[in-house]
Amino acid sequence: MTRLIIDTDPGVDDAFAIALAAREPGIDLLAVTTVAGNIGLDLTTRNALGVLALCDRPDVPVAAGAHRPFSRPVRGDTAHGVDGLGGAAAVLPEPSAQPDPRGAVQLMVDVLTASDEPVTIVAIGPLTNVALLLAAYPSVRQKIERLVIMGGGIAGGNITTAAEFNIWVDPEAARRVLVEEDVPTTLVPLDVTMRCSVGDDWLNRLARSGPVGSALAAITPHYRAWYAEFFGRDDFVMHDALAVAEVIQPGLLRTTPLRLEVDCSDGPSSGATLADRRGGVHQDPGRLVDVALDADPDTIRSFILERLT
Amino acid sequence: MTRLIIDTDPGVDDAFAIALAAREPGIDLLAVTTVAGNIGLDLTTRNALGVLALCDRPDVPVAAGAHRPFSRPVRGDTAHGVDGLGGAAAVLPEPSAQPDPRGAVQLMVDVLTASDEPVTIVAIGPLTNVALLLAAYPSVRQKIERLVIMGGGIAGGNITTAAEFNIWVDPEAARRVLVEEDVPTTLVPLDVTMRCSVGDDWLNRLARSGPVGSALAAITPHYRAWYAEFFGRDDFVMHDALAVAEVIQPGLLRTTPLRLEVDCSDGPSSGATLADRRGGVHQDPGRLVDVALDADPDTIRSFILERLT
Amino acid sequence: MTRLIIDTDPGVDDAFAIALAAREPGIDLLAVTTVAGNIGLDLTTRNALGVLALCDRPDVPVAAGAHRPFSRPVRGDTAHGVDGLGGAAAVLPEPSAQPDPRGAVQLMVDVLTASDEPVTIVAIGPLTNVALLLAAYPSVRQKIERLVIMGGGIAGGNITTAAEFNIWVDPEAARRVLVEEDVPTTLVPLDVTMRCSVGDDWLNRLARSGPVGSALAAITPHYRAWYAEFFGRDDFVMHDALAVAEVIQPGLLRTTPLRLEVDCSDGPSSGATLADRRGGVHQDPGRLVDVALDADPDTIRSFILERLT
Amino acid sequence: MTRLIIDTDPGVDDAFAIALAAREPGIDLLAVTTVAGNIGLDLTTRNALGVLALCDRPDVPVAAGAHRPFSRPVRGDTAHGVDGLGGAAAVLPEPSAQPDPRGAVQLMVDVLTASDEPVTIVAIGPLTNVALLLAAYPSVRQKIERLVIMGGGIAGGNITTAAEFNIWVDPEAARRVLVEEDVPTTLVPLDVTMRCSVGDDWLNRLARSGPVGSALAAITPHYRAWYAEFFGRDDFVMHDALAVAEVIQPGLLRTTPLRLEVDCSDGPSSGATLADRRGGVHQDPGRLVDVALDADPDTIRSFILERLT
Repeated sequence: MTRLIIDTDPGVDDAFAIALAAREPGIDLLAVTTVAGNIGLDLTTRNALGVLALCDRPDVPVAAGAHRPFSRPVRGDTAHGVDGLGGAAAVLPEPSAQPDPRGAVQLMVDVLTASDEPVTIVAIGPLTNVALLLAAYPSVRQKIERLVIMGGGIAGGNITTAAEFNIWVDPEAARRVLVEEDVPTTLVPLDVTMRCSVGDDWLNRLARSGPVGSALAAITPHYRAWYAEFFGRDDFVMHDALAVAEVIQPGLLRTTPLRLEVDCSDGPSSGATLADRRGGVHQDPGRLVDVALDADPDTIRSFILERLT
Repeated sequence: MTRLIIDTDPGVDDAFAIALAAREPGIDLLAVTTVAGNIGLDLTTRNALGVLALCDRPDVPVAAGAHRPFSRPVRGDTAHGVDGLGGAAAVLPEPSAQPDPRGAVQLMVDVLTASDEPVTIVAIGPLTNVALLLAAYPSVRQKIERLVIMGGGIAGGNITTAAEFNIWVDPEAARRVLVEEDVPTTLVPLDVTMRCSVGDDWLNRLARSGPVGSALAAITPHYRAWYAEFFGRDDFVMHDALAVAEVIQPGLLRTTPLRLEVDCSDGPSSGATLADRRGGVHQDPGRLVDVALDADPDTIRSFILERLT
Repeated sequence: MTRLIIDTDPGVDDAFAIALAAREPGIDLLAVTTVAGNIGLDLTTRNALGVLALCDRPDVPVAAGAHRPFSRPVRGDTAHGVDGLGGAAAVLPEPSAQPDPRGAVQLMVDVLTASDEPVTIVAIGPLTNVALLLAAYPSVRQKIERLVIMGGGIAGGNITTAAEFNIWVDPEAARRVLVEEDVPTTLVPLDVTMRCSVGDDWLNRLARSGPVGSALAAITPHYRAWYAEFFGRDDFVMHDALAVAEVIQPGLLRTTPLRLEVDCSDGPSSGATLADRRGGVHQDPGRLVDVALDADPDTIRSFILERLT
Repeated sequence: MTRLIIDTDPGVDDAFAIALAAREPGIDLLAVTTVAGNIGLDLTTRNALGVLALCDRPDVPVAAGAHRPFSRPVRGDTAHGVDGLGGAAAVLPEPSAQPDPRGAVQLMVDVLTASDEPVTIVAIGPLTNVALLLAAYPSVRQKIERLVIMGGGIAGGNITTAAEFNIWVDPEAARRVLVEEDVPTTLVPLDVTMRCSVGDDWLNRLARSGPVGSALAAITPHYRAWYAEFFGRDDFVMHDALAVAEVIQPGLLRTTPLRLEVDCSDGPSSGATLADRRGGVHQDPGRLVDVALDADPDTIRSFILERLT
């Protein structure tokens, strides 16, 4: 059993990721914590509760975390619609549970402290909560088995030419986690997620698989329309779900240990994740992150579809 | 009675500030939390315990906080010597107490939560701990009466042309606290602290006043030599003590409400605190911080000397 | 006789400065070169020709220079109205002369090369042209007696909290001239120009002094209204005229030799001029610029009024 | 006949590029201008003269340009050895010609003005001279047929993780040329040059081809050793020669029209060249540069070897 905390900002692809973890027998989902990102904190928290209700997991505690980045103003985008789920949040059942009043950081501290086994944290939104946890409670680090983070793009971004959305929203938090910390970390960047997109056929099979698959498919149209308009793409990219897939089956993604840097300037590279691949003397010691640069797309697609259905 | 938490990185002038608060009958000193800044966290924590022992206040809990800035590498200076107290830390008694194992952020949360009256926080080091507290526990904000912060320089810096040391070490934390938050805040910048410096006569009177004054005076020579070398000054600047003096007697410093910005770039203004004083339309709404730009130097000198002796 | 080139972006206060030089018997005005700044290049060139026509100096060659900053997009403001002269450009006579086809940099090179005496350059707009001249023709440096530059603000800016307009428009050009070059340079920043503002009485006396004074006074109302709205000020600031006054009577402004830095970041201090006044070891060698931090306001006001009337 | 100006900072691979152009019957080499980059200006100028002497082209005028970047301090590297030619500059014949006293910018202006046909400029060093030319003499733009620039790296850099050397040395000049200007431009970045590296066999064939080939091969060992140490590579990369090859046979490199941005911050991406390849709405109008992302390596290797021998 992999003990897991999900830190998330649902978000269409976050919903896929939560559902994947919530229904996986090999995952002991200890907590879901929310952060402002794809949409504001109230909605990401409500959406997290809704997805857990959909998956019949009202037992999983949900706590709201940072309503803004650590040191910057809030910045959002419109990819996930007015409610964070493409305008289709109503397909989710009304959550029966309430958010945990302790808040995200305290809930993570309590869960980690109480666990006698190391816990994996999969972070699929801006890294504000995770950075606050590590900075305010350095001793919990020893209870973290691995961070698996969806974020960044080594060969380029999505929200800007240089930056991926999760990192761009809070680059200082990302720099703390990816550069200044030393917890074992796997990064799942755009480089691999964009390669593993799915199309109509995949979504149709998901939609027909039952109520969970049907609801998940129902939140995708706005997101797909946005991708079509902004990137000229006709497919659906399950960014965050790949991070959970890697947790379920470690090694599913092919990783390379790289030294990272996060651009915290206000320039055109703000929020970029830089990976030094120059070799030679640049292959020097220092914090290395396992960066998932590649995977077999068909394997990923089948893996996620099977687990969700 | 003013309920007080001191967040600090002793540091020579921090020691003066702690002593001032610890011995003041009108101050209920609830906790001292430490942060890396003038020197590393182990030494700032040890020095805080030592100053409290000197003041016969082993009852005040001390907890160690951030050992580094939120998102940047550690940067220090040499003004406070190898032990943070000008090489004279040995003049302090051996602390009997141990640091509180909860850590700085959790101790502040617990103290604030437990208090039925609002609490003042005086922050006289880099703002890492305070920013983490506000970001990770937004609901405690209502328990904070006022932040009184020694930091910044509106007309210029000390560690660089543009930046004061506390802000320069962790500008992102400072930006969170001074720009993005809305807790009532008084900033005590270099503009006022440099005007209220003291000289030999003042220090001699302090040294002759008893064991506490004697020990405080004993830690000043290295710091003064450093100021002489780096700034061509022959006096002693009690930066942090002014912030505590303002807590003891609110209004002692003359403040102006200003909209601030903190420079978080890597350029030559990194860590600068910018105050918009252009008037007109620039006097628009937004977060205002009470900036102590002025005070009567003789009043300040007498006030601090009397309280310390 | 002081041989002079004026590089300018008229601009209301630029018009005052040009008129001051054009009518001064002790000034040999060799050329006026224009740059985009307060308004676009076509209008600054036309306005320069118009002011020279007003002063009966069609003999002075005018050449257009940079229509944009060196490496940034054009940024303007609205202080000088739609035509750069507060909407009142029509009070100037129609220029009889045409711009010199060589362009600003080539004209300056030719004038400097042809002069057997050193030439002063007074630069009262963004420093694009001057930086291009020095960077492309390093050998002409020996023909430059002094640069007198209106720009910057040591204690704060006008277009932003941190930056003065001329420097903010092209900080890279300013950095080249003020930090990387070593031509003898006097900087006339906001610190002194704002102190030497004039009011209704001064302007009324100017207006009654004759056709030149009358035309100059006629272009001020929009600029004054803008200052009233944006800065809450009721006076008229003759920024650029102070730089020419210093040329006419060297030493009129009180200068301090300071090491400068220009902020070329995109952060909140973009375009700031930083002057290291910390003393001690910071008083180290390196390029020093004579910064006019002070002057006697009444002397300045009388000096300029007398020369203009 | 292609009329050509080469702007260069020889530099080992620059020497290859100059030789390629100097010996090509289809190229009318009008001028060579030099810039500080791989090594200081005195040496790049001397090396340019030396390579032309080697190629028996003392008729080509050489003029020295910028001895430093536009607004930043000089920054170099050690790849090209103490003399810019791997310590082997002595293999070149003593130049008989002297540098043209007009300097680089004036020489380019004069050559362009005098030419009745458009001229190609191939720029293979930092873009300081070219940016100065375009900024100071906007009207010469109409005489430029195409800029072919070796510089940048879309998928990453060499001197830093993010930046290629030529752009990193003077990012402001690069931004002027690649973003703010609109001259037809082909960029030859690391993405294609690194793919077209050559090895021992190629260099041996070059060395045996005659005195020019022999001298060129003789300057490569230090550069190759540097690449081996810093990048773990055993091959020789002829960066600048590819730009000249593209001039000799337009279309030799496969280009993609892209909107570029140059990072002028002081952060970790300083000097990066960002190319927006996101498609969709991001494919909007604006300045497009033809970026050579690909070529057939064997074709390139053969092409250059044949022309040089």
